[in-house]
Amino acid sequence: MAESPHRAAGRRLQLPLLCLLLQGATAILFAVFVRYNHETDAALWHWGNHSNADNEFYFRYPSFQDVHVMVFVGFGFLMAFLQRYGFSSLGFTFLLAAFALQWSTLIQGFLHARHGGHICVGVESMINADFCAGAVLISFGAVLGKAGPAQLLLLALLETVLFGVNEFVLLSLLGVKDAGGSMTIHTFGAYFGLVLSRVLYRPQLEKSKHRQGSVYHSDLFAMIGTIFLWVFWPSFNSAPTTLGDGQHRTVLHTYYSLTASTLGTFALSALVGEHGRLDMVHIQNAVLAGGVVVGTAGEMMLTPFGALAAGFLAGSVSTLGYKFFTPILEAKFKVQDTCGVHNLHGMPGVLGALLGVLVAGLATHEAYGEGLDSVFPLIAAGQRTASSQAMHQLFGLLVTLMFASVGGGLGGILLRLPFLDSPPDSQCYEDQVYWEVPGELEDEAQGPLRVEEPVTQA
Amino acid sequence: MAESPHRAAGRRLQLPLLCLLLQGATAILFAVFVRYNHETDAALWHWGNHSNADNEFYFRYPSFQDVHVMVFVGFGFLMAFLQRYGFSSLGFTFLLAAFALQWSTLIQGFLHARHGGHICVGVESMINADFCAGAVLISFGAVLGKAGPAQLLLLALLETVLFGVNEFVLLSLLGVKDAGGSMTIHTFGAYFGLVLSRVLYRPQLEKSKHRQGSVYHSDLFAMIGTIFLWVFWPSFNSAPTTLGDGQHRTVLHTYYSLTASTLGTFALSALVGEHGRLDMVHIQNAVLAGGVVVGTAGEMMLTPFGALAAGFLAGSVSTLGYKFFTPILEAKFKVQDTCGVHNLHGMPGVLGALLGVLVAGLATHEAYGEGLDSVFPLIAAGQRTASSQAMHQLFGLLVTLMFASVGGGLGGILLRLPFLDSPPDSQCYEDQVYWEVPGELEDEAQGPLRVEEPVTQA
Amino acid sequence: MAESPHRAAGRRLQLPLLCLLLQGATAILFAVFVRYNHETDAALWHWGNHSNADNEFYFRYPSFQDVHVMVFVGFGFLMAFLQRYGFSSLGFTFLLAAFALQWSTLIQGFLHARHGGHICVGVESMINADFCAGAVLISFGAVLGKAGPAQLLLLALLETVLFGVNEFVLLSLLGVKDAGGSMTIHTFGAYFGLVLSRVLYRPQLEKSKHRQGSVYHSDLFAMIGTIFLWVFWPSFNSAPTTLGDGQHRTVLHTYYSLTASTLGTFALSALVGEHGRLDMVHIQNAVLAGGVVVGTAGEMMLTPFGALAAGFLAGSVSTLGYKFFTPILEAKFKVQDTCGVHNLHGMPGVLGALLGVLVAGLATHEAYGEGLDSVFPLIAAGQRTASSQAMHQLFGLLVTLMFASVGGGLGGILLRLPFLDSPPDSQCYEDQVYWEVPGELEDEAQGPLRVEEPVTQA
Repeated sequence: MAESPHRAAGRRLQLPLLCLLLQGATAILFAVFVRYNHETDAALWHWGNHSNADNEFYFRYPSFQDVHVMVFVGFGFLMAFLQRYGFSSLGFTFLLAAFALQWSTLIQGFLHARHGGHICVGVESMINADFCAGAVLISFGAVLGKAGPAQLLLLALLETVLFGVNEFVLLSLLGVKDAGGSMTIHTFGAYFGLVLSRVLYRPQLEKSKHRQGSVYHSDLFAMIGTIFLWVFWPSFNSAPTTLGDGQHRTVLHTYYSLTASTLGTFALSALVGEHGRLDMVHIQNAVLAGGVVVGTAGEMMLTPFGALAAGFLAGSVSTLGYKFFTPILEAKFKVQDTCGVHNLHGMPGVLGALLGVLVAGLATHEAYGEGLDSVFPLIAAGQRTASSQAMHQLFGLLVTLMFASVGGGLGGILLRLPFLDSPPDSQCYEDQVYWEVPGELEDEAQGPLRVEEPVTQA
Repeated sequence: MAESPHRAAGRRLQLPLLCLLLQGATAILFAVFVRYNHETDAALWHWGNHSNADNEFYFRYPSFQDVHVMVFVGFGFLMAFLQRYGFSSLGFTFLLAAFALQWSTLIQGFLHARHGGHICVGVESMINADFCAGAVLISFGAVLGKAGPAQLLLLALLETVLFGVNEFVLLSLLGVKDAGGSMTIHTFGAYFGLVLSRVLYRPQLEKSKHRQGSVYHSDLFAMIGTIFLWVFWPSFNSAPTTLGDGQHRTVLHTYYSLTASTLGTFALSALVGEHGRLDMVHIQNAVLAGGVVVGTAGEMMLTPFGALAAGFLAGSVSTLGYKFFTPILEAKFKVQDTCGVHNLHGMPGVLGALLGVLVAGLATHEAYGEGLDSVFPLIAAGQRTASSQAMHQLFGLLVTLMFASVGGGLGGILLRLPFLDSPPDSQCYEDQVYWEVPGELEDEAQGPLRVEEPVTQA
Repeated sequence: MAESPHRAAGRRLQLPLLCLLLQGATAILFAVFVRYNHETDAALWHWGNHSNADNEFYFRYPSFQDVHVMVFVGFGFLMAFLQRYGFSSLGFTFLLAAFALQWSTLIQGFLHARHGGHICVGVESMINADFCAGAVLISFGAVLGKAGPAQLLLLALLETVLFGVNEFVLLSLLGVKDAGGSMTIHTFGAYFGLVLSRVLYRPQLEKSKHRQGSVYHSDLFAMIGTIFLWVFWPSFNSAPTTLGDGQHRTVLHTYYSLTASTLGTFALSALVGEHGRLDMVHIQNAVLAGGVVVGTAGEMMLTPFGALAAGFLAGSVSTLGYKFFTPILEAKFKVQDTCGVHNLHGMPGVLGALLGVLVAGLATHEAYGEGLDSVFPLIAAGQRTASSQAMHQLFGLLVTLMFASVGGGLGGILLRLPFLDSPPDSQCYEDQVYWEVPGELEDEAQGPLRVEEPVTQA
């Protein structure tokens, strides 16, 4: 490709140096701060007279593995819908999430460190790190195809910090409940990404328009992501809840909510489609809104009917968002939201937060019995009324939107640093900028790439 | 596409209205009837002095998740082998299964409701609902490419009811054992679909013949389905069995049976293939027959050798069925079985039922010890001899075949209602009828679609 | 295809006869020797007063299922990167692994049989059988595209025996620790395959060079394998370790090690790539080296920092291996390593063994407390010092290299038996030799196949 030697050399070094630097830094911090917790340490675990069956591992590992699949398989393939950006979607998902797992172990650990200044790790910290990676990947979805890997790593560096702080404020300071992360993961990740995308607005993006869509097989690859996300979402929402009825109930709600968002998505997609045809973009994404919308209320006594109603609403709103709101977002608000994260994570996340406000506000001792203590410990302890919990939940949403917006803005400024490698407008959504692509595609692609390049470099 | 405006308008509305109607109806029924069971309800669970580890969730959730993957990833991708029908295979699988999960929660719940007329839900009811969705998808496989989504939803509506009734008759009235559903799921789903396909027989289907095969990449996508089904089948058969040795033994049998059906499939496929070449259709499907065939006997004392022998037989019969029987089924019996469900679910399901007859008839107190009570409670209680149990098992198979045939016939009459949208003979196996398809394929497809359309519309 | 009738007839019969023969033999051996263990037998399990929760099944089945996914989905799709060899990669993986599961149940069972000469099976023996299948598939990777299915079955027959013997020598005779199989699986499988590939060296292999690379979509299919391997590797290393802290700690190490090998791989791949571009081959493979390298030390007190450092080293070495060492391996050592198993399993396996030597040598009573007995029973019992354990670990590596080399050599001699069907040099990496391939590809492929064939047959 006709690229200036200076630029190529810069690109050549930015990514590897940043990887090495970040890995070196986290390794040193791990050496100094990170220790086994009492369930992963051989001496500590065997010191008490535990039964092996009591190890938290057996209660949470199956859910953790499902979450892990969602982060890497789910997000990765869901974003592989673009015709020429599959390598980047899968590869950068890998890179960003791998770094976020390490870095958020440190950030979340510092904020919660209790044990002599040490960060103690085990299956719960692994779940929390994966959740942070999920938020980073949601934001990635908003700028997919328009940012280089070095930029994205810096983004993950910043977002992980803000994610940790926001989560700490909500869960630890405000006593907000948000097990499945309607607020802390989906709303945060989405609005972070949307503000970021606004700051990185590219008026000339139509130069890459011919690569912005899918082809038949890329849509099938994306469905791998969709289906694994859909199937494992009950594990996502239930992974960090209280054991026993808490996990069980959360799974149940998420399961039914997803079935309803699926029916809502098919109904609305066919209703608004040309000639009544279904749109793959809706099916790939909006069916998942049912998982997002019960992220907060899933562990509460939402009732199975409540799960259906919430899921149906979320799926419908999400589908309508793809059809009607995404174009407005770009035209009026200058937000180019590649994956439609506003429709899948933004609006359903906010709806989920509001659902949490509602269900928390309706909490009674009758409905929860002795279980109130696990779901709403502050209400059970008499420190809060249900209405007060609801107000705190609402305030948590506002705090999240604030952190996300400020974070996305800062992220945008960071990523616009002029020396950072970013794909030109004519080569967005294009793997060849960052990857050796096998011959077949290179030939196929020669036309447009060769033709447009001079324009870009001019 | 050159389509009459009337027809297009009808199609536009049938699917969304049906989705909305069905979702509305199930939501109301959920509100009235569906409640948490004692393991998902906060108050009920905390009322007793349970240890969290006792929650059924921890014994069944990992298996449930595997089953969930099988239903959505497994069936979905397995049916994505057609070159132009990947969107529909994956999408309609989603739609049908999501609806079936809700609807069968209600149907199965009504039939088993004990608690003051309420349906109490938890991980076991979720597993049972997924099983019903599996049966619906098996029937879908027989008419794949030849029915529209509104037709398919009506089919699911009907089949779920009959599935529930048949299952109730077998398990509750007849005291038949069928944990992995050789009868209730595979035999029922297959013969329901085959009779349905017979009623919907299309003499002019060769107009769509050029789309009925696979292409190289669609065969690889189908293998995603095959492999996940194969790997997780031990969880399918063991998900609802008794805990402890019951689940453990069922897993073991399914694991070995599948290895033997794999070897049998490769042997027979190469033996009957032209030039000794293997056929992807056999590998994609017949390797799974080993899971079907131990669906009934898997929890019994089949012995590891018995699992190998049964699996090998099922894989071989299934492969020979694809090669020799499927063409006869179409030519002589006018059954156009798109996915060959007769070979994968029909014959192996019947074989599995007969294997259950045999192994039940051989049950002794020596072989099962105190475990006889979990596997054959009626024999253990002295209410039945082993031979009597065997006769009941055999009768269960006949009942299943009867329900399936009547159901498939009714389904066919239902789907032939003239106002229902159905693809014309020349556009079967074609995504573009129901989906916005990205440009690439549309161009490629213009030829045949444009040419044939007038014939269809005439 | 223009093939001599004799040859075609031979091919037609070799595979099916071998399948039938092997399946018949294992079935007979199963009938004679294989029995339920006390956790899968109805009478034995109910004889004691067990709680169902105590059944080993609930501690190991979720990990087992992840391992099962890795073997069939992971290895299968990872090897599907070749443009024309997807059917064979997935299909032969199926065939080889299915046979290896049966055969290694017998071999490992004979070596460990204690119960009156019977082989008692349950979830642990299933995990061990899957591990053996993993080793066979690693060796398969070294000769991928260059051996026929009958040859490969014979290979599995031989390798399973040697795998069992080597594992027995290490774990039972030498008291070596190697839960995740850095030595017994990865080092053994890799060097077995490399020596085999050396013996089967094809000087004329460049005749198939145009099929040796990937195409865009085949690289995406391969990523399905990569990501599932990456995500489930913590289960692989922890599946057979001691319960409680042992499994938990192993998961933790593998999780972090993989994140570091991912960062190392991206750094090095960009650093050595032309124009700083990333290479899909590195990402597909070297990111996994972090799982291999903690296969031995993962259950020891490696520390989280140790896991990061080891993973980073392994990912970097593996990437450099693909770039610089694989060409040398072919040019100087005449080893044509199709999948680069030397880089993914060979070098990281040896590094993992050496890491095990180091961490075992550093073991103290302080660090392990009462847990020393589960990790290093011989040290805890005072029969060995930590240094002595380290020496035994090192000796175990040498034994493994010896068994692997001799086995690979024997395997090569076996596979060169002249009557065995093997693809000609011009038709390596080509599905059509063994599979009915759908029309599309056949047309596309006609050119090269037709042209080269006469040369081959001459």
